[in-house]
Amino acid sequence: MFLNNCWYVAAWNYEIEDGLVSRTIINEPIVLYRKTDGTIVALQDRCCHRSAPLSIGRKEGDSLRCMYHGLKFNDSGKCIEIPGQDSIPPQACVRAFPVVEQNSWVWVWMGDPAKADPALIPPAVSLDNPDWIFRSGSIDYQANYQLVNDNLLDFSHLFYLHKDSFGVGEDWAHTRPKVTRLDRGVRVQRWMPDQPVPNHLKATVSVETMDLFSTYDYLAPGVMVMHSYGFPGGTVKQFEGQEPHGIHPIRHDVTCQSITPLTDGTSRYFFSWAPNRHALAGATDAQADGMLAIARQAFEEDRIMIEAQARVLDQTPNPKQVPIAFDNALSQMRWVLDKLINEERQPALQPVAAQ
Amino acid sequence: MFLNNCWYVAAWNYEIEDGLVSRTIINEPIVLYRKTDGTIVALQDRCCHRSAPLSIGRKEGDSLRCMYHGLKFNDSGKCIEIPGQDSIPPQACVRAFPVVEQNSWVWVWMGDPAKADPALIPPAVSLDNPDWIFRSGSIDYQANYQLVNDNLLDFSHLFYLHKDSFGVGEDWAHTRPKVTRLDRGVRVQRWMPDQPVPNHLKATVSVETMDLFSTYDYLAPGVMVMHSYGFPGGTVKQFEGQEPHGIHPIRHDVTCQSITPLTDGTSRYFFSWAPNRHALAGATDAQADGMLAIARQAFEEDRIMIEAQARVLDQTPNPKQVPIAFDNALSQMRWVLDKLINEERQPALQPVAAQ
Amino acid sequence: MFLNNCWYVAAWNYEIEDGLVSRTIINEPIVLYRKTDGTIVALQDRCCHRSAPLSIGRKEGDSLRCMYHGLKFNDSGKCIEIPGQDSIPPQACVRAFPVVEQNSWVWVWMGDPAKADPALIPPAVSLDNPDWIFRSGSIDYQANYQLVNDNLLDFSHLFYLHKDSFGVGEDWAHTRPKVTRLDRGVRVQRWMPDQPVPNHLKATVSVETMDLFSTYDYLAPGVMVMHSYGFPGGTVKQFEGQEPHGIHPIRHDVTCQSITPLTDGTSRYFFSWAPNRHALAGATDAQADGMLAIARQAFEEDRIMIEAQARVLDQTPNPKQVPIAFDNALSQMRWVLDKLINEERQPALQPVAAQ
Repeated sequence: MFLNNCWYVAAWNYEIEDGLVSRTIINEPIVLYRKTDGTIVALQDRCCHRSAPLSIGRKEGDSLRCMYHGLKFNDSGKCIEIPGQDSIPPQACVRAFPVVEQNSWVWVWMGDPAKADPALIPPAVSLDNPDWIFRSGSIDYQANYQLVNDNLLDFSHLFYLHKDSFGVGEDWAHTRPKVTRLDRGVRVQRWMPDQPVPNHLKATVSVETMDLFSTYDYLAPGVMVMHSYGFPGGTVKQFEGQEPHGIHPIRHDVTCQSITPLTDGTSRYFFSWAPNRHALAGATDAQADGMLAIARQAFEEDRIMIEAQARVLDQTPNPKQVPIAFDNALSQMRWVLDKLINEERQPALQPVAAQ
Repeated sequence: MFLNNCWYVAAWNYEIEDGLVSRTIINEPIVLYRKTDGTIVALQDRCCHRSAPLSIGRKEGDSLRCMYHGLKFNDSGKCIEIPGQDSIPPQACVRAFPVVEQNSWVWVWMGDPAKADPALIPPAVSLDNPDWIFRSGSIDYQANYQLVNDNLLDFSHLFYLHKDSFGVGEDWAHTRPKVTRLDRGVRVQRWMPDQPVPNHLKATVSVETMDLFSTYDYLAPGVMVMHSYGFPGGTVKQFEGQEPHGIHPIRHDVTCQSITPLTDGTSRYFFSWAPNRHALAGATDAQADGMLAIARQAFEEDRIMIEAQARVLDQTPNPKQVPIAFDNALSQMRWVLDKLINEERQPALQPVAAQ
Repeated sequence: MFLNNCWYVAAWNYEIEDGLVSRTIINEPIVLYRKTDGTIVALQDRCCHRSAPLSIGRKEGDSLRCMYHGLKFNDSGKCIEIPGQDSIPPQACVRAFPVVEQNSWVWVWMGDPAKADPALIPPAVSLDNPDWIFRSGSIDYQANYQLVNDNLLDFSHLFYLHKDSFGVGEDWAHTRPKVTRLDRGVRVQRWMPDQPVPNHLKATVSVETMDLFSTYDYLAPGVMVMHSYGFPGGTVKQFEGQEPHGIHPIRHDVTCQSITPLTDGTSRYFFSWAPNRHALAGATDAQADGMLAIARQAFEEDRIMIEAQARVLDQTPNPKQVPIAFDNALSQMRWVLDKLINEERQPALQPVAAQ
């Protein structure tokens, strides 16, 4: 059960060049390509004739030809040529999905096109934003996307699972963040005072400890933008645990992450990470490279755990699961997704006009 | 749902030598071997005792011994020895399938043995027919056999899928063949005037263009014998599009092809191809080799497309499919197969004799 | 449908050293580890929080910590720490399985712990028993465990399947053993007079032929201890086919074998084999090595046959199977297992006290 009326990250925009890219999203095969004007098209990757995949077809201008029997589709999915016959029946078409290229991601709307409101695209930071030095990538998971959402919504695991990569202190396993419900997600914020500098920042700052503040919004279906700040010790007291303002951080980093369900049991995780050029400790290409190297090590630790968890759940589909306090954010996010999915399946009754 | 009362190609006859050959046909495991008189036996490849496969057993004269607990079966599948006991219960037997070796193929009848009429074996040309220089082989498909039938019944795909192998002209994608219903299949015939010589014939003729005539019968379950002729330009007009006769072709080739369902989702494709020795352009071993090399390249193009199509259909079992004019032959063949399958499941009522 | 109230061999005891061992038994994932006092713990390998496998966690003293979010469990499966919260709900626990280390095997009780009676552990001979020179190992099967039980309960297959390894005479395929029903299994005994010395014993005795006597008890779920004796020719007559006594054998060997269902379609086979130091022909390390080398060759022959049989049964779930006389022991064993499984599912009515 996936949310349909929703923008999914289909790809990094740099993945869509001259060729045809095949990608499955919520079990639906899609072919992506760029038109001559540079905009991106997303069509069902299944010819309406005999179900051959169009992604092994041929781009002809802004159109796409199936290379089995030659049917040709325009960028809205309408069949415009059937070799061997003159008339083209109106049902000869493949589904076209609304696409928006925004902040370096290619967003595809999987539900009712009439509801494809670009305002619903979760915010992210573009890879070419000059304030940041971005590095990016993606990883495939043999696991349902909700297990990755869960992971990203409870950072108590950083102390246990990522000892060898991020190397954060034990208070990450004990200090619960502030969780705020958002319209289509949750906001997670935490101050971690007097933190030893975690490994991915060590090369870049000379202090021994920092007060860390991190804040992220996690939005349906699974898009996270997190800002992490390092301040001199004592800063947390100054703001009494509230969001900091009017002060220049030693470090400021941002990471954009998105998990896209490919099928029920597979997902693709897109991520970027960047130091900010304007923080006191500055930012260099080498620092950006070093940060992503450690993040990649951590993501691999996540992948091993999450895929092991997925295999256990395959063996025991509905195990007993005891909730704990740290589940707060992930439980709220699952509630939000369930609510959105239910609303789309059983549209709310319209109020009856007064007689 | 497969047709049972039908001859399936189990193997090329040269595959059955001294040993035991295991082959699954319409989900039924079968073991094939030759008797001392050279005739071929096909038994169920599953011992009636504890279901061990007989194909890892031992041939003893014309009999077959299961090498798990030693039960021995004669060539009609009757158990003739049970180690450790004297009496053999009559139900101790494995199913024997009618087999005919004909025209280099080993034909196995999968249905009611009483109905196994050799007259129902589709015609083919024997590999040792002196009029031809044959080359042959086989390819396994991860796809249902009907997708291969479909492929072979619509040659509009030659222009799109086989540009790099056969390299036929665009009119193959626009000129519809004449399709005639046969008792257990369809006949497909076409004249293609003024054709550039396709790649697999280029080495053998010196003309620039030919009028091509091709004709094939496609018979249940999926057996095709196609004759292709090349004539001097203008010949098509002489016969007004009808079958040519009384004229010696520049080229004459035959290909025999058969697709056997192994399981629901796998198939084996048997094929031969040969130039005729008596055509004007003659035929050499080198030409026969060259023809099959290009045909193999084309079959690989087919395999990639058909297996991709099968994967799409696995993902979306009943997609919308819009019929086109070129579907004529494949639709008729699917109709014929459905009809035969239905008849065998619901035998026609016998007319009641007049009182 | 597996028997739950039953001791399963989870491992050789030497497999459980310092680390965590993951093993699935009757579809249930289990993690095994040793406490500081050397005793073994078996817990459900699935954290009660979010189902992560504990076997990729960390041993802390006698406890086990999940390395995803840090929950810690003691050796009875009770959660004793949840990072980030003070109170631990009573339902926060994982199932602990009764474990006994006995005769070199680690036995795990998969059913109701209240019924875990160590007296039900089948007998076996410890690898460090000074009377024997043991060799041991294990093999995984892609097959249901009952197919391995069947194999071990009908040795008529020795003549057919193990010609190249054990190399026994043809009378093994014709001489039926004496089969006696036991409470939780069967006893199988046979005299084989004037036997050529089988291959695995050839290096150790100088005689040409021996009278062999073998006896084994096969107990639920699938544990066999077999003693094999070689006597001078004529001994069989002396005892009139009954168990020999008061006579010193030329050879005496023991083998302990156990088949544990991992999942419905996979199993692990544990085996040991040893010559007795006190038999007339004595026993050396080299002889013990040689015996196991030939036994391993035979087990591989078994594995190939049984996995082939399993694939046939996957293709045809309920084939016709004709029983033969040699099925006696395996049929009785299947009956015993079915009875035990049924009793555990439908507990016997208690007799009503007389009024």
